[in-house]
Amino acid sequence: MKTRAAVAWEANKPLTIETIDIGGPKPGEVLVEIMATGVCHTDAYTLSGLDSEGKFPAILGHEGAGIVREVGVGVTSVKPGDHVIPLYTPECRGCKTCLSQRSNLCTAIRGTQGQGLMPDQTTRFSCEPVGGRGRNDIFHYMGCSTFSNFTVLPEIAVAKVREDAPFDKICYIGCGVTTGLGAVIWTAKVWPGANVVVFGLGGIGLNVIQGARMVGADKIIGIDLNPAKAEMAKKFGMTHFINPDEVGRDKVVQAVVDLTGGGADFSFECIGNVHTMRQALECCHRGWGESIIIGVAPSGTEISTRPFQLVTGRVWKGSAFGGARGRTDVPKIVDWYMEGKIDIDSLITHTMPLDEINTAFDLMHEGKSIRSVVTF
Amino acid sequence: MKTRAAVAWEANKPLTIETIDIGGPKPGEVLVEIMATGVCHTDAYTLSGLDSEGKFPAILGHEGAGIVREVGVGVTSVKPGDHVIPLYTPECRGCKTCLSQRSNLCTAIRGTQGQGLMPDQTTRFSCEPVGGRGRNDIFHYMGCSTFSNFTVLPEIAVAKVREDAPFDKICYIGCGVTTGLGAVIWTAKVWPGANVVVFGLGGIGLNVIQGARMVGADKIIGIDLNPAKAEMAKKFGMTHFINPDEVGRDKVVQAVVDLTGGGADFSFECIGNVHTMRQALECCHRGWGESIIIGVAPSGTEISTRPFQLVTGRVWKGSAFGGARGRTDVPKIVDWYMEGKIDIDSLITHTMPLDEINTAFDLMHEGKSIRSVVTF
Repeated sequence: MKTRAAVAWEANKPLTIETIDIGGPKPGEVLVEIMATGVCHTDAYTLSGLDSEGKFPAILGHEGAGIVREVGVGVTSVKPGDHVIPLYTPECRGCKTCLSQRSNLCTAIRGTQGQGLMPDQTTRFSCEPVGGRGRNDIFHYMGCSTFSNFTVLPEIAVAKVREDAPFDKICYIGCGVTTGLGAVIWTAKVWPGANVVVFGLGGIGLNVIQGARMVGADKIIGIDLNPAKAEMAKKFGMTHFINPDEVGRDKVVQAVVDLTGGGADFSFECIGNVHTMRQALECCHRGWGESIIIGVAPSGTEISTRPFQLVTGRVWKGSAFGGARGRTDVPKIVDWYMEGKIDIDSLITHTMPLDEINTAFDLMHEGKSIRSVVTF
Repeated sequence: MKTRAAVAWEANKPLTIETIDIGGPKPGEVLVEIMATGVCHTDAYTLSGLDSEGKFPAILGHEGAGIVREVGVGVTSVKPGDHVIPLYTPECRGCKTCLSQRSNLCTAIRGTQGQGLMPDQTTRFSCEPVGGRGRNDIFHYMGCSTFSNFTVLPEIAVAKVREDAPFDKICYIGCGVTTGLGAVIWTAKVWPGANVVVFGLGGIGLNVIQGARMVGADKIIGIDLNPAKAEMAKKFGMTHFINPDEVGRDKVVQAVVDLTGGGADFSFECIGNVHTMRQALECCHRGWGESIIIGVAPSGTEISTRPFQLVTGRVWKGSAFGGARGRTDVPKIVDWYMEGKIDIDSLITHTMPLDEINTAFDLMHEGKSIRSVVTF
């Protein structure tokens, strides 16, 4: 069959809207009609060409929501008509990692996913050769490719969600919401009354903040160089704001220690800067403070600290997809949104049709959007 | 009263045996007759002058066992005749850290202890001025000063232990045994069936190994440049040995990954080298592996890694005094020793009288001892 899709033909070029061919679902796979998709920094990172694993041509997008239209042989957990959120971190429930019950980083299809392929090592996307391109295959991206109106995913990479939830909001749970909220709930396990510090008040940081509020944190301190970000953060639960340019960029740790009476119980780095990662660790409370890295640092960069920081009780860890097990936890987050426990609507600052998807990238680069959503 | 003691008059000079004055216990303090004391790398480090907090003249030693001989006003938890192990990490049970129940790093007397003083900011040790020295006061060390036959400690800094345990063995629980064993049990909480890697097969590493065996670890992999250390390590429970010079010093991580089928569940750095600290982290299993730093690195050195290591699920933490709450946990370890659950005797390779304490330092520097114990 045919589908409309925004295709990334090569790095650092705008996407073009094409009508391409998509193969039906093979055994264990499902065909999903994407109804809405967010545009995330990770898509922009890969499009920029800096992602060493990025392959072109590809259909980017990994933050979608849609409806199952067809299932392959042997699929039992979803059926046509089910509403689903695609999962770039699948949950097979059978690999060593899933069975460990200690991590969400399912490895069942990791090898092929990283190569832009389905588990059978082929791609479902293709197009007629045009001009000098001379290629037929188009790669998948993060196992999702939600910038296509129709996409194919392994059954283990879709989370079935309730049908009354609006696609153009819950698509954000496919990445940003879960990454921030989950880091608080599943990775850090923030306790009620904890003091929490959040470095970077973008979309991820705001979701960390509302996660901290949801679990009953006490002080929720936001840190950002842009004071304009404080207003929205306060709406999401931030209780204190630190502008490094006001307290001194090298005095952020002391400012947190002063504000918390000794240091943060938990800190979250949502920027992707190795210098703030160090500050995030060192502003934690001696004895037990834990720092969680969420932001993705430029390739080749490294984090550093004196080992004394760890020996005196601080813990350094990271979080990917919020530590959430996709099929198990994503539906819970959709419920929390529908019950009003978390706010997503305020974070989706722009909505546009697929034809205008490049505008979503422009808004992101200009810092004008928190999240843009493309609807089909 | 008078006591014999080995005094460190200045950095990098042998200790001298002196008869000095010791003041009686003030309120909340106890006078302890030290019966035996271990000589630890930390004593040597301070004596070398590299310890920026080291103060002279001082009575070193922090790994002792003895008998309470006198108690100050208000002391309720111990009485004369009680057998005790001095604690350089006290347990007041009332400070923010103790009450957090998340750390053993009691802060009740941290300020004065670091200055070589008792909590009232004075020292109990003094001597007649001799020659050109012109000083009367001698500093305490790590709140213990077990190189003196009699010493004074705050009540919160002694662990009461059973009276049938031999002083010349359980003194080692005052530091080395607890540091290694405790890191496994209280810091890492190693589970039965876990794969454990230990960097450095000195006294701490051997105690990590027997801790891992005690809690039912599966593979217990020791790493050391000196193959002669493998024999003793096997006695303590090591199941596999890696010599970095055999597999290649830059291939240690891969060797561990191969041997464990993916990486260690827990690794322990017992050397104090920032390069092996990095290897210890990076040889941990993706998703959940935890690396615990025990070794003390040279001041000014830093640990580094790519943040990706943490974002993909590895955890970096440290351990001081094995995460043990001294008054609560040290008596348990004494019991475990007396019940035969752990071996201490094999680790104490040399015993000598106080007069020969400098020999203990020589044996350590020459790598000829695991632990030397001085008896009074």
